[in-house]
Amino acid sequence: VQNIKLTLEYDGTHFCGWQLQPSDRTVQGELKQAIKQITGEETNIIGSGRTDSGVHAKEQVANFLTNTRLEPKQIKTALNGILPKDVRILAAETVADNFNARFDAIKREYHYTISTYDSAIGRQYFWYCRYNLDVPKMRQAAQYLLGLHDFKSFCQSGSDVNHYICSVEYLDWQEKDHFIMLKIISNRFLHNMVRIIVGTLIHVGRGKIEPIYIQKILDKKDRAYAGQTVPAKGLCLIKVYY
Amino acid sequence: VQNIKLTLEYDGTHFCGWQLQPSDRTVQGELKQAIKQITGEETNIIGSGRTDSGVHAKEQVANFLTNTRLEPKQIKTALNGILPKDVRILAAETVADNFNARFDAIKREYHYTISTYDSAIGRQYFWYCRYNLDVPKMRQAAQYLLGLHDFKSFCQSGSDVNHYICSVEYLDWQEKDHFIMLKIISNRFLHNMVRIIVGTLIHVGRGKIEPIYIQKILDKKDRAYAGQTVPAKGLCLIKVYY
Repeated sequence: VQNIKLTLEYDGTHFCGWQLQPSDRTVQGELKQAIKQITGEETNIIGSGRTDSGVHAKEQVANFLTNTRLEPKQIKTALNGILPKDVRILAAETVADNFNARFDAIKREYHYTISTYDSAIGRQYFWYCRYNLDVPKMRQAAQYLLGLHDFKSFCQSGSDVNHYICSVEYLDWQEKDHFIMLKIISNRFLHNMVRIIVGTLIHVGRGKIEPIYIQKILDKKDRAYAGQTVPAKGLCLIKVYY
Repeated sequence: VQNIKLTLEYDGTHFCGWQLQPSDRTVQGELKQAIKQITGEETNIIGSGRTDSGVHAKEQVANFLTNTRLEPKQIKTALNGILPKDVRILAAETVADNFNARFDAIKREYHYTISTYDSAIGRQYFWYCRYNLDVPKMRQAAQYLLGLHDFKSFCQSGSDVNHYICSVEYLDWQEKDHFIMLKIISNRFLHNMVRIIVGTLIHVGRGKIEPIYIQKILDKKDRAYAGQTVPAKGLCLIKVYY
C-alpha cells in the first residue's frame, strides 16, 4: 500500500467547494472519480481542510492510500489527463504511511483579493469593492487580530466546533496595481473566518468604525458584532504548511 | 449631437469577438443594444479595431454619435448598469465631432501571455506552453521584427488588405512569475498577426529554428513559412494610442 500525497490547484468558480457531495460538482468528487478510473479503487481522500463553494486553491494538499503499482509521477500524469481543466495536480509523491493531510497540517495561508475598480477581466478571482478604502487604517486594525485569540465573532453562526481559539501568525494588507489583498496565516480557520475578517476590516477602511473597535468585536465573542461575509470568489487557499 | 468616446474593458472568453454579428454574442452587439436602451437610438459604433473571438481588451476605444442629453458620466453609469459583467465602461467623454476611434488611432499595444505550467487558475487569460522555452533566444529573434516590414508571412491567408506593411515600434518578451509575455506596439495589426508571431517565436524558443531564420520568414512573404496561430485566449488589447 502506498500513501500518496497530492498537491493540487483549482479554480473554484464552477465547484460547490472541496467536499464530496452526492449531487453537486466538488473537487473531492472529481478527484475520487479520477482516481477510481486509474486504479479501480474506491479511495478515501483526505484533504487538508474544506474550501467553500467558489473559493480557489493554489496549493491544496490531500492524501489517499492505494494498492496501485503506478509510480507517483505516473499517477500525476494520468490524473491530469482525466481531470477537468479547472483542477490540476501539481505534484504527487509517496509519503510515510502515517501522513495525514488534515491532522499533520500545522498552518494554512489564505489570500483575499479586493479590486478597487469594477474590472471585467479576472472578476472570478476578486471582489470589487465600490468604496474608497483607507488601507493604512485597515492595516492598523488587522494588528488586533494577530496572535492567539478567540475568533467566535469571526465564525459563521451555527458552526460545530469545540472551541474558537486560533493562533494567527501573519495578517496584513498588501497593495498592488488596483488590488488590495489580505494575506493571513493561521494554525486553523473557522467557517468563513477570512471572509468575515475582510468584511469587518472593510468597515474600518470606510471609516465606519475605528481600528480599536476590532478589539471590542473580539471580546464580544458574538458573530453579530462583526461585518458581513464578503463573496467567496476573492478567497484563495495559497499554501498548507506541514 | 454629441460625439462620445468610450474606453472599455472586456473579458473575451464568452464573446465571438468585437464585431457585430447577426446571431452571435459580440462586444459591439452588447454595446449597441445597451446604448439603444438608454438613448432610444440605433447607433453606429466605431471601434478602434476588431478583436477576434476569445481575445480580451483592457482598454478598447470606441465612439458613437448621439442626440441624448445625458452627460458622459451619466452615460457611463447607465451603460455599466445594463451591460453584462464581462464588458465594463472605464470612461466616457465628449470629444470633437470629427474624432474617429478607428482612423485617429496611431498605434495599438497588445500583450500575449504564455504560462510555463498547466495552471487551473486564470486559464482564460493565458496559453499553456508545454515546452521548455529559451527566452533569451526568443528575445533575440523578436528584434528582427522591429521597425518597418512587410508582415505578409505573419498574416492569416486570405485577408483582404491593400498591403502588409506595419511599423513595429516595440516588440519584446518579459518574464514574471511563471509567465512569459510578449509586448508589442505597432501602428497597425494584420489578422492574427500577434498570434502568428508568437507561434513562430515559440519555434525559436524550442530550438527548432535559429533567431536569424525570422529574417528569412519575413523575406518570403508567405504565411506557410511562419509558425502556427497560437490560441486567442492569451491575447489582450492593452491600449490604443491617439
